[in-house]
Amino acid sequence: MTGTDRSQLSTAPARGPVVILTHPQMGENIGAAARAMLNCGVSELRIVNPRDGWPNERAEAMSAGALAAMPPVQVYATTEDAISDLNFIYATTARPRDMVKQVMTARSAAADMRARESRGERIGLLFGAERSGLVNEDIALSGAVITIPLNPGFASLNLGQAVLLVTYEWMMAGDRTADTLTVGDSFPATQASMTELYRRLEEELEDRGFFRARDMKPTIIRNLRSMLVRAGMTDQEVKTFHGIISALIGKKMK
Amino acid sequence: MTGTDRSQLSTAPARGPVVILTHPQMGENIGAAARAMLNCGVSELRIVNPRDGWPNERAEAMSAGALAAMPPVQVYATTEDAISDLNFIYATTARPRDMVKQVMTARSAAADMRARESRGERIGLLFGAERSGLVNEDIALSGAVITIPLNPGFASLNLGQAVLLVTYEWMMAGDRTADTLTVGDSFPATQASMTELYRRLEEELEDRGFFRARDMKPTIIRNLRSMLVRAGMTDQEVKTFHGIISALIGKKMK
Repeated sequence: MTGTDRSQLSTAPARGPVVILTHPQMGENIGAAARAMLNCGVSELRIVNPRDGWPNERAEAMSAGALAAMPPVQVYATTEDAISDLNFIYATTARPRDMVKQVMTARSAAADMRARESRGERIGLLFGAERSGLVNEDIALSGAVITIPLNPGFASLNLGQAVLLVTYEWMMAGDRTADTLTVGDSFPATQASMTELYRRLEEELEDRGFFRARDMKPTIIRNLRSMLVRAGMTDQEVKTFHGIISALIGKKMK
Repeated sequence: MTGTDRSQLSTAPARGPVVILTHPQMGENIGAAARAMLNCGVSELRIVNPRDGWPNERAEAMSAGALAAMPPVQVYATTEDAISDLNFIYATTARPRDMVKQVMTARSAAADMRARESRGERIGLLFGAERSGLVNEDIALSGAVITIPLNPGFASLNLGQAVLLVTYEWMMAGDRTADTLTVGDSFPATQASMTELYRRLEEELEDRGFFRARDMKPTIIRNLRSMLVRAGMTDQEVKTFHGIISALIGKKMK
């Protein structure tokens, strides 16, 4: 998926949820998380106690320009410090065993985030270390848990992928793109030119003895028209089709 | 996100969409795509003309076991060969300029895929090379285009991430997980024990002169109860809270 419009690239304003990575190990994963965040219009990244320090060259490289386009990453010693100015925290983790917590799918959490943001709340998304995940102390600080429903036989999600799915759902919850089908750059032909095409095709076929089973002719015509209308041709395509008929019957092209 | 249940891991049956990567360059990206697919319960991967041949060690490593758990990857020389047994193809790409195509978001495409599958159709998802994306000839073979609505200022998505979002939407379109909030492993306390807790707390506060502004007492009590009910305590937590009150008033713990 290419298609970045650099003219629309800016140091994104601090809006949307804050992503907090606690104790991340590999710079590559921090970079992949940053890229995924910015893909989804989320630009504020905080890191708690990164194993390899900060800044990190591998993170820069893997972010494909995202870290340079985002506000500077803030680094904290503890999760408490990293979330101190935020109003509501979601912990992204498997379902906790020994705690009473609201558990939401990423999709329902996204709707909840949008509702909180519309009331002026600042939201944080907590992600744990690659191997061990979030510690219970961090989950306890969170108002809700986000669990992504995945293949129970293969549910281990890469850190960058987890950040992508949660921020993608946040973005989709505010997306104004038409959900239903849209068509490309061309307009469908008018029904008048379609009717003209049907009539010409049927006439040429009639002249060449195509409708040998006379009683079947109406059915065959109905099916032919039904097939052609499904193609949803443009004016240009109707002209092309006329050209095809002309070529097949041996008529000189204009 | 950890939590793979190996007992549920099996050589997944060939169901769901077939993912076709055309001319992929880096083995790492093929591996990340395979991992993302299997996370979402999609297990059939085909590759057209991979730059570095097949099999590929880097792909194996990056797949975190997914390639070993999936049916063997099939390799083809051309896209036509790779899709020959399929009924409907979605091309994942930016909106095409010079072609008339149905364009769908990943979410609306997922609903369309499920409808086609329920009619017995076999579905294919085409992804292009990392840098250049899908060639127009491959888009022309496709019945519809999937465009993921992303941050227009930073829309360049990694191949593994693109595969994740499309297969995730396919999975979610058939997901039966309760979308609405669920709670953890504990049951909320009965209203009787909550009422007992309110009464005890109010009594102890009354004894200690907490309600100095007498006319405000009903409002304060109402707000206190409202705050406590929001916590959604379990029976165990109610007991803990009683213990806290006892401790604060200097009463010996039982």
